[in-house]
This record gives sequence, C-alpha cells and structure tokens, in this order.
Amino acid sequence: MGSISEIPKTQRVAMSDTPETGAKIIEHPVVQPENLKPGEALVRLAYSGVCHSDTQLLGLCFTLNDPKVVGHEGAGEIVAINDPLSKLKVGDKVGIKFIADTCNQCEFCLDGHDMLCAHMKWSGRHVDGTFQQYAVSYTSQLTPIPEGLDLAHAAPILCAGVTTYKAVKEMGCKAGDWVALPGAGGGLGCLALQYAKYMGYRTIAVDTGADKKALCETLGADAWVDFKQTDDIVKAIKAATTDGLGPQGAVITSPRPEAYETAMQYIRPTGTVVAVGLPHGGAKIHCDVRDTVMLKKKLKGSNVGNRKEAIEALQIVASGKVTCPIEIRPFDQLNQTLDDLKAGKISGRVVLDLHK
Amino acid sequence: MGSISEIPKTQRVAMSDTPETGAKIIEHPVVQPENLKPGEALVRLAYSGVCHSDTQLLGLCFTLNDPKVVGHEGAGEIVAINDPLSKLKVGDKVGIKFIADTCNQCEFCLDGHDMLCAHMKWSGRHVDGTFQQYAVSYTSQLTPIPEGLDLAHAAPILCAGVTTYKAVKEMGCKAGDWVALPGAGGGLGCLALQYAKYMGYRTIAVDTGADKKALCETLGADAWVDFKQTDDIVKAIKAATTDGLGPQGAVITSPRPEAYETAMQYIRPTGTVVAVGLPHGGAKIHCDVRDTVMLKKKLKGSNVGNRKEAIEALQIVASGKVTCPIEIRPFDQLNQTLDDLKAGKISGRVVLDLHK
Amino acid sequence: MGSISEIPKTQRVAMSDTPETGAKIIEHPVVQPENLKPGEALVRLAYSGVCHSDTQLLGLCFTLNDPKVVGHEGAGEIVAINDPLSKLKVGDKVGIKFIADTCNQCEFCLDGHDMLCAHMKWSGRHVDGTFQQYAVSYTSQLTPIPEGLDLAHAAPILCAGVTTYKAVKEMGCKAGDWVALPGAGGGLGCLALQYAKYMGYRTIAVDTGADKKALCETLGADAWVDFKQTDDIVKAIKAATTDGLGPQGAVITSPRPEAYETAMQYIRPTGTVVAVGLPHGGAKIHCDVRDTVMLKKKLKGSNVGNRKEAIEALQIVASGKVTCPIEIRPFDQLNQTLDDLKAGKISGRVVLDLHK
Amino acid sequence: MGSISEIPKTQRVAMSDTPETGAKIIEHPVVQPENLKPGEALVRLAYSGVCHSDTQLLGLCFTLNDPKVVGHEGAGEIVAINDPLSKLKVGDKVGIKFIADTCNQCEFCLDGHDMLCAHMKWSGRHVDGTFQQYAVSYTSQLTPIPEGLDLAHAAPILCAGVTTYKAVKEMGCKAGDWVALPGAGGGLGCLALQYAKYMGYRTIAVDTGADKKALCETLGADAWVDFKQTDDIVKAIKAATTDGLGPQGAVITSPRPEAYETAMQYIRPTGTVVAVGLPHGGAKIHCDVRDTVMLKKKLKGSNVGNRKEAIEALQIVASGKVTCPIEIRPFDQLNQTLDDLKAGKISGRVVLDLHK
Repeated sequence: MGSISEIPKTQRVAMSDTPETGAKIIEHPVVQPENLKPGEALVRLAYSGVCHSDTQLLGLCFTLNDPKVVGHEGAGEIVAINDPLSKLKVGDKVGIKFIADTCNQCEFCLDGHDMLCAHMKWSGRHVDGTFQQYAVSYTSQLTPIPEGLDLAHAAPILCAGVTTYKAVKEMGCKAGDWVALPGAGGGLGCLALQYAKYMGYRTIAVDTGADKKALCETLGADAWVDFKQTDDIVKAIKAATTDGLGPQGAVITSPRPEAYETAMQYIRPTGTVVAVGLPHGGAKIHCDVRDTVMLKKKLKGSNVGNRKEAIEALQIVASGKVTCPIEIRPFDQLNQTLDDLKAGKISGRVVLDLHK
Repeated sequence: MGSISEIPKTQRVAMSDTPETGAKIIEHPVVQPENLKPGEALVRLAYSGVCHSDTQLLGLCFTLNDPKVVGHEGAGEIVAINDPLSKLKVGDKVGIKFIADTCNQCEFCLDGHDMLCAHMKWSGRHVDGTFQQYAVSYTSQLTPIPEGLDLAHAAPILCAGVTTYKAVKEMGCKAGDWVALPGAGGGLGCLALQYAKYMGYRTIAVDTGADKKALCETLGADAWVDFKQTDDIVKAIKAATTDGLGPQGAVITSPRPEAYETAMQYIRPTGTVVAVGLPHGGAKIHCDVRDTVMLKKKLKGSNVGNRKEAIEALQIVASGKVTCPIEIRPFDQLNQTLDDLKAGKISGRVVLDLHK
Repeated sequence: MGSISEIPKTQRVAMSDTPETGAKIIEHPVVQPENLKPGEALVRLAYSGVCHSDTQLLGLCFTLNDPKVVGHEGAGEIVAINDPLSKLKVGDKVGIKFIADTCNQCEFCLDGHDMLCAHMKWSGRHVDGTFQQYAVSYTSQLTPIPEGLDLAHAAPILCAGVTTYKAVKEMGCKAGDWVALPGAGGGLGCLALQYAKYMGYRTIAVDTGADKKALCETLGADAWVDFKQTDDIVKAIKAATTDGLGPQGAVITSPRPEAYETAMQYIRPTGTVVAVGLPHGGAKIHCDVRDTVMLKKKLKGSNVGNRKEAIEALQIVASGKVTCPIEIRPFDQLNQTLDDLKAGKISGRVVLDLHK
Repeated sequence: MGSISEIPKTQRVAMSDTPETGAKIIEHPVVQPENLKPGEALVRLAYSGVCHSDTQLLGLCFTLNDPKVVGHEGAGEIVAINDPLSKLKVGDKVGIKFIADTCNQCEFCLDGHDMLCAHMKWSGRHVDGTFQQYAVSYTSQLTPIPEGLDLAHAAPILCAGVTTYKAVKEMGCKAGDWVALPGAGGGLGCLALQYAKYMGYRTIAVDTGADKKALCETLGADAWVDFKQTDDIVKAIKAATTDGLGPQGAVITSPRPEAYETAMQYIRPTGTVVAVGLPHGGAKIHCDVRDTVMLKKKLKGSNVGNRKEAIEALQIVASGKVTCPIEIRPFDQLNQTLDDLKAGKISGRVVLDLHK
C-alpha cells in the first residue's frame, strides 16, 4: 500500500441536504489510507464537472432518504492505494466516472458493456461521488489521464465526453456521411459535434439561438438548423444534406422530449438514430412500423462508454482535436450551477474548482 | 433473342376487378416474344404463393383505379428473353419477386438495398404480377431457382422466404443466442423459425392455439409461448431464456399490432428487435427513451431481401434444411384464399397451381 | 475468506524434471487457504487435459532452468478463496485456462484480447499449471463451469475448446458457407469441426486415415479429403464445395507445416484463412501478393479466446451440441501421453484423472 | 437513343504497337451512335490518367498478339447512348474505370465484389480503353462525375483514387488509429495518405527522398520514415506510434517487393495489413505462423473498389478534402510517361490531355 504524507483528516464535501437546499457544503472526514479496502484508492480531486443528471441523482438521495455526495466527472491524483495487482500508483492522474465499480465477471462486463452489470456501483448513489476533495474509488474503474491534459479540461470528459464519444461511434457511419446533432449547443452536444468532426462526418447542428449557433459554427458544424426558426424540422434537416435524403446518422443529446419525436422521420433510409439524452420527466420515441420497415431505419440506445472508450475519449482531447468549452466556478456555486442548468442558461460545461 | 415454340396467344390471369369481387380470372393476351423490350423475359409461371400484402396491393388497384394482375411470389420457366447480356436463357427455372426492377445505379441499389431504389418497380403495381400464366419480367431481378427444388415449394420463398431470411440475419445474433419470434405459426413466422434454427439460434415461438403450437414444435422451436394463455407476455418470454434476461433478438412477423408493443420490453439489454411484419391499419412501436438508452436496446426495420439474399434463401430450401409448409390450391381459389388469410385461417402458405 | 475443512498439507504434482525424464510425479506442498494472496483461489482439480503445447512448455522449463508444474486445461472445485469482490465462492466448479492472469487495464485487456496483455501470466510458466491436485489460481480468469457438465468433459474445453471456438468464429462466415478444416481428426480439429457445425457451416474435414475419416463423419463432416490420398489438395478441397470455387473459410489446426502452405490457394475469393495451430519447429505462410490482391483473400491469426468465449465454449458443450471425444488415463501416464501426442497416436483428447 | 451532332468519323487513339515502340498514336474510326449495342454509350474523353499497370496491360497486348487501346482512368462526356433503362443521358460527365463491364448476376457482383466477376471485361484488354478520344463503354459501369469537379482531376480517381480509397477502408481502423503507408509519395500512395487523413487516421508516410518527404508533409502526414535512411524499418515504424506498439493498419501501395516483407512484422497486435500494390515481377508475403497466431495479426488483399466506392472516392475529391497532384501532358507523351513511371521519376499522377 502506498500513500503520500499530507492527507488531511477532514475535507469539504457537497452532501445532499433537502429538496429545498439541494447540496450543502460541509466538513466531512477523509477516509484514511489505512482504512482503504482491497481494490480501493484515495483520490485527491481537483475538479468536477456538473452534469444534468446530478439533479436527478440528488433527487434520488431525497426520495430514498439516503444522503450522498453526488457528482460523477472528477479529475485528480491518487494519494493512496490498496491494490498490489493494479498498475496504478500514488501520484497518477486519474478520472472518476459515473460507473464506480462493476463485477468484471458477468456476460455484460466481459463484453465491454460495463453499464449493464447488475452489480455496478454508481458514483453519487452507491458510493460518494466527485463533489468532494478526497474520494475513495475502485481501482478497476479509475481512468488514467493522459500526460499533458489539464485536469479541469479532463473532468467533463469522464462523463459528457465518453458518453458522446460512444454515442457518435454507435451511429456506425463512415467518413463523409451526414449526421444530425439535436442539442449540439449544449454540454453533451458540443462534444458530440466535435467527436463527429473528428471521425470525418459532416455535421448538422440542431439547436436554438444566436449564441449556440456561433458556438456550433466555431466548433466546425457544416450546417445549422434553429428548431425555433423552422416550421418543419424534418424538412429542414433533410434539406441540409447534399441530396436531400436526410442524414445517415443522428445522436440525440437534447434534453427536450420533442427532439425524439422527429428523429425517426428525418433519418435517411437505412440510417441510425442513437438515443443518449435523457429528458427530465421521461420521453418516448414513436416509430411508425411501416416507415421503419419500408425504409430500413434503425434506432439504438447508447449509454456511457466503457473503460476503453473513456481512455480513447480522453486521448482525443489530449491530442487537441476536441475541447470541452468550460467555465470554472468555485466549489460553493454548485447549487447555483444546477439551477442554471435546469434553466438552460449554460453553454458548454461548468467545472467546479473543488479547492476554491 | 431466344424463345420456344408453343407460346399461346392468350392466357388466364387474375385481374383486379372491384372491391366486392376482388380479382377476377379472365382471358388475357400473352405478350409475344417479339414484343419483349430490351432487358425483358417472358416467364411461363407454374405456381404463385399468396401473401398478406396481396390484399393491400389489390386495394391499391381499386384506390388508384388502375387494374393490375397482382401476386409477387411466382416460380416458372423462361420461355423467351430479350437480353443478350444476361446469363439467363430460355428453359431456365426462375422466380419473380416483389421487386420487379430497380435502376441498379443509385446509392441504394449499389449497396444492396434494392428495396429503397426510387425507381423500383413492384410486381402487381407497376407491372403485372404473378397471378397469371405468362408474366413479362425484368432479367435484372429474376432469381435463378436451384436445381432439384420443385417450383411449388420455391414460390413462397420468393417473398415470404427471402423476407424472413433477411430479417433473421438482421438480428446480428450468434449461434446459441435466444431469439423470440412472434407470429411463428404464420406464413412468414414458420419460415423465420426455420431460418433461425438454420443459423444455430435457440428459438422462442410466440403464437396461439394448439395447431400452431404443434407446427412450431415440429419445426424445432426450443420454447413456446401462447400469447392468449399468458397474463404477462414480457415475463413469459424472458422466462423462456436460460438466464431470464430475455432473448438477444426478436423478429416480428406477426400481423397483430400488439406484437410490436411489447418487443422492446422483453428484448435483452443490448438486444435487437427486427420489425418486418406490416399490420393492417398500421402500427406503432413505442420505445421508452430511458429504457432504450439505459439498456442499450436496438430496433431495426427490415424489408424484403435483395437479389443475393433471394438466391441464398432458395439454396437453403433446396438443401432441405428449411421447408415452407404449403397447401396447393387451384388458381380460381385466389379470392377464397385471400379471405382465409384475412380471417387468420391459414397456417403455412397457400400456393396456387396456375394451370389448374 | 472462505474455505472447506479437508485440505491436505501435501499433494501429488507432475513437476518438470529433465529433458530425458519429462515431468516427474512428486509429493509437493499444498498452498494453505491462509496463504492465498488477494485475488487468489485454491482449486481442487479433478481432471486436466493434455495438450500439444505442454511439450513445448515443458521444454521451456528445461531451457530456462525454471521447474514448474505445466498443464493448462484443468477442471475442479474452489476449496478456498481470498477475494471478497468476486462472485465466485467455495464449492463452485471452475476451470483453469492457459491464461492465468492479466492486468485487466491495458488496451488489449479492455478490448477482450486477454492473450495480448503484456502482463499476462501463463499456467505452467509463470505459475504452476493443472498437472497437480490443488492449484492456486487468480479469480479474475477462473471460468465457471455450467451446471450439469461433468468435469472430465469440461477440462479440454478450457484450452482446446475455447481456442477452436474462437478460431471458427474468426472466419466471419455465415450459416451455409463451406469451411475447410485441416487437422479435423485431431484434438483441436475435432472440436473445430463440431463448433463449425454448431454455427451452421458446411464442413470439409481434411486429415488422413480411416479412423480419422470415421471420426469426422460421425461428428457430421459434410465432405472428407484425405491429404495422403490426394495428388492435388487444392483441387480436391475446391472440388468439395458446391460450385468448385473453394471454401469461404478455413481454420488450420493441423500441426503439419504443409497445412499452411496450401490454404491461401484453395480459399475462395474474399474468403478467410484462420491460423491457429502452431507446428513444432515453426512454419511460414507464403502468400502470393498478386493472388491475395486480385482475389481479395484474407489471413487472420487467432489465439485462445477470452473469458467470455471460454464461457460460451463451455455452454455449448453443456448443451450437448459439441462433445470432446476423451480418453481418461490415470495421472501417472502423463509422460506416456505426451509421447503418444508427439507420435500422432492420439485421436480426440486425453484427460488425466488427477486422483487416480 | 440520344446523340449530339458533331461526332467525327475518326479520332486519334494510342494503339498498342510493338514492345519497342510501345503505343502508337494513329487515326482510327469512331464508333457511330447508330452502331452502339444495347447497354453501350459513346463517351468523348477529355483526359486519361496514366497508371503503372498500363505497362503491364500493354505487355499483354504484345504477348497475346491482340492490339488494343489501353488506359483505364478516363473522364469525359456522354455523346451518345443506347440504353433506355439507364438514368445516364447525353451530356452527362462520366468516368471510365478499369472494370468496363460485369455480369451483375453472380455471387460476387451481387455482393459488391465487381472485380471478382468471372465475366468481367477490362478496359484496355477486352475492350479498348481510355487512351483515345471517343470510347465505347458499358452504361452499367460508367461512373457519374460530381458537379464542379474538373475532368483532369477526376481522371486519376477512376483507378488510383478508388483503389486506394477502398484499401484504406479495408483496414477497418477507427479515427485516431495509426496507419503506415509504404509508398506514400507515389501515385497511389499520395492518395492513400489523403484518404487516410480524411477518415481521421494518424499517418506514417514511408518512402524515400526529400521531394517525397515534402509532398507527404504537405498532404498532412503525421510521421515520416525514409526507408533508405533507416537500418531497421520495423523498429522505425513502431517508434513512430505513440506507444511504440506499431500501427493498427497499413496499406501497401509500394511497387517494391521489399515493402511486403516487413509489414507483418511492424503491424500492431490485432492490426491489419492491406495488400494492394502489385510489384513488377511478383512478390510474396511471408508470414510467420507463430507471430501471426500469437499476436492475432491480419492480412487482407484489396483490389479496385466497386461502383459505389468509385462514386464515394470522387465525391470526396469534389469536396476538396482530397486532391490528386497531377501534371497534365499532351496525348503524344504517353510512351515517355510510361518510361518515366518505370524509372520512378513521377510523383503524383500524370494526366494526358487527349485533345492536345
């Protein structure tokens, strides 16, 4: 077991409090190195991204009356580790993802579908998450952060990045294909847009407003559709493709249920719609059987990527080809940030500096 | 141009008549060899299968006020051909499919998606179909019938066979996987069941009644679920799989809209539902976004196969590993057969002897 | 940590001795439960298969002057375990494979290529293997043995079974395709033949002699080519396929270098040769560039499968669709068995009863 | 049948003459519109690229004593057509490829492997090729040239472009993977390099000399290896990848047999070597069985692409993302150009202006 000396006894954490107060920053014990169980590491977190689903996870803490530190996109450094078999060691820069641990033995784990493991533990639900300064995590799911990538920019890749990278891959498109990206101006969407460009796709950014349009164009969108300025979104998206037959792929990162209603209509025959965004309050995708059958359309659900995809998503960011536009805020603006997210006021991703 | 001598001047055809009378058998001219256009062949049909969609195609004749000979699963012999470039020749046994002709130049044709060609011609809509004794067809889409396969058994493979073969392939399963087949006792379903067995899958036949149960068991179903005897179809289908997690694949051939409502629920995480049956009056597939995303479920539309798949589907039947259970009826029982189909009275496939 | 009571202090093991004496059965300590390191289990082995590569591994012990218990296809029961995170428990039936342990963190591990992990430990090289009664193994790579499968038949699946199952899958063929299997009458080949049948392929068994012919025919070979009775093996294998164009796939399990020399010649255009057998003394595959390019031929190396494939290979055997023909011999016939293997005297697989 | 008025009675063609004189430019009849057979078009060619294989095809004319106009990368305009079924029409800009015609009915045609059709006709062998001003071609294999792409730049894409585009796709890599491109400074290689960049791969250009280095760097090579400046080419190529394990893919366009000797050694475990270049005098690929098996390496032959891939390769060039560096020479410099090619004096591609 390795450790470094200056591990404090207590730390600041954002503990779930009440539906009214949200998360409350309190002083809380740091698990000491000698108390780490086999397969655990202690990570001094520097930054954590703030994600739409944190609101939902916070809600679960209240519903289940089970207070937890939520947060699931953290980047930091290992300060103690109890796992002689792991290649990880004290001093390594690592990321903490939504998936904190899996059994590594079931059909799904062995096939790279970590997210479907029945024994999976979630950051922020089964174990305390990343809105704290010192997190205990499982070595099996820690993600090494490539040399030269700063931790603030790495943080949002651990959830938003790997999730969109995976979804973009799931379209199964080839370089030159057109892909539609509803929600392209949002935290997930702006990453999906860049990963899509990285893979050589031609992109149709779908969102609303001049700011988001400007952001998407900066990030390399080949076409722009403002869903509020368009009477017929299906027609507008089809028209954006060279031959008018619609895009070969689409990734729905939008938190608006409406984004799901039209996707199976504008997608090109034989094309693939990848569902990944989870609208608040639920959403349905209604597929017309005749249209789906006659035009051989496909729908695929995609979830956060696995450990290999997390590494790939980070390496691409480290190469400079994809960047998450971030705004760094001090730790105590967590509740404010969650409110801003709900109000749709955030473009790109907010990252909390956990030591400010 | 080749031809054989005894081509009559007239023949019996089942011409669409009125919504009340359906198709009426009349005496009708035979296109003579010298009138074949480039790329056309004259086929003396021996048998034609009768398909659910013939009712819908007949309906189109009435709606569009455009009388046609419908039918799209015919087997016979080339008696004249005007295509020096084709390898086909007089005397060859061939099948006529739903797809009568395609442009062979567009993106979809060049990718093996014949069915999506914008210039596609349908048997029974753009050209007269297979409920006649002498059909003019396009050499580009005629399917050679393997040596030793009798024409009566070949006929239903040209639509029902190739459609189900393709759909079963589209699940993307591997040998040993569980697949659910709602409608397994029907004309399409009993072929899907056999093609699934041929590929090494473990099959859950879903249908109703003792007769269909007996048929499915004879054809090798590994499990049987009677949807009328089950309170909870989702639970019953999941329970039929070894580990209770549900089948890796499903092919919906059922003409019941209800069959589509549950498929995305019982399918195993990461599994694939293939939609291929087209319920009368339309149907919808409602996918819950959260369930689809979290469990990485997939939905794929599948349509009739292409020319290569038609050849493969026939070769498998010729090998004796798949057989379409047929009932041969005389030509003039066409209307009766369509009525029986609508009433759900037919198991397997009715094949008309066009010369009786 | 769990354990059961009656664990002896010593056991019989076959320890590598000298090039002349081979392995020598000696009395040797049993690692006691309290000495298991984290992530280790103690397995009471019942049976171990004997594999061609045991001779090579034994040779390594001599060359490196590093005595070890070799053997890498063992089946038994967990009697003690030190891994609270594992789902495995005392009393579970498990198999020990060639791959004893991997890092589970590198690119290859995370992609299911266990065999390419730079930190992989081999049974019989880095740790003692399965020619002993009580083996220490790593929980991460132990394979659960399905209910109802007897341990003697399970043993050879842990190496021969998973290796051939994987190789057969790597051909990427579809049901109905022709595949050639040089060495089909041998220990690996007779399994490859059955897994190929399980996946719906049409099989050309290639080997020599009446006994092997009879065995292959019993196991369902669709065609037989005796390489000693044939002047032109390329012609003979092509002729065995329906259209004479050659098989779509081939898996080379043969230990004869000659088997590799012709495979790229008889394989069908666009077909795939999977190399998996490792001839003593090495072998080369010589591909003519013009032929490979013009006919779009493919060559793929395949190695032992990963943990998921081991589970699948066993489940197929448990289902009764594939059986390894075994001959059970007492433990002390190990050296004799290795000699018989070298002399090509063994058909099917010899399994040692480690307690007789 | 359509045509335009000003079709001359004779034209200039480069007819194969003798091994000493090569091709000789002579006056030769133009097939007149009324003499076109069904399925044929008359194309007024503007430009033709000159390809390594033209020397070999010219050699065939001499060996077989069958004079022909060779050349197989032509771009021009349809001036007459005898095919009422085709969507092509007089005035369309089209390209003529190496594959002049296929049966469109065999297993290989129906699967998109045009090149493997047993009835395939080659431009420059079975029919006169593109070193002429008015070529008769088959409508089935004419490739439409996208709006806005000039004919001189389109010409070399019809063979060099589609062949390398296809080969690069065949590696099966994903964006971010490393690929090695031996021969990257040559006519095929400089296109392979650009298509590889288009698909998001990281590229290792392998060739020799300062000019080729400069060209490769201009075209976006991520690394450069000069095979004449390196003692150990395997080591050098591995070292060029981030982790030193070697590239995931390689496309061998080099006409040097040596380029084939090392590829299976430097390729990364699980990686794919695509063979596409055809060295004069033949070449062999020698794969060590143990290395191929243990490291799961793959070798694939790739040939010219099919009709869909030709369209895609052109569309990418039309988009401006890939450009063939061309040098335009007058028609009568054909023999000189072939000599320069043999002497390795040409970088990029020479295109003949057939009307100068």
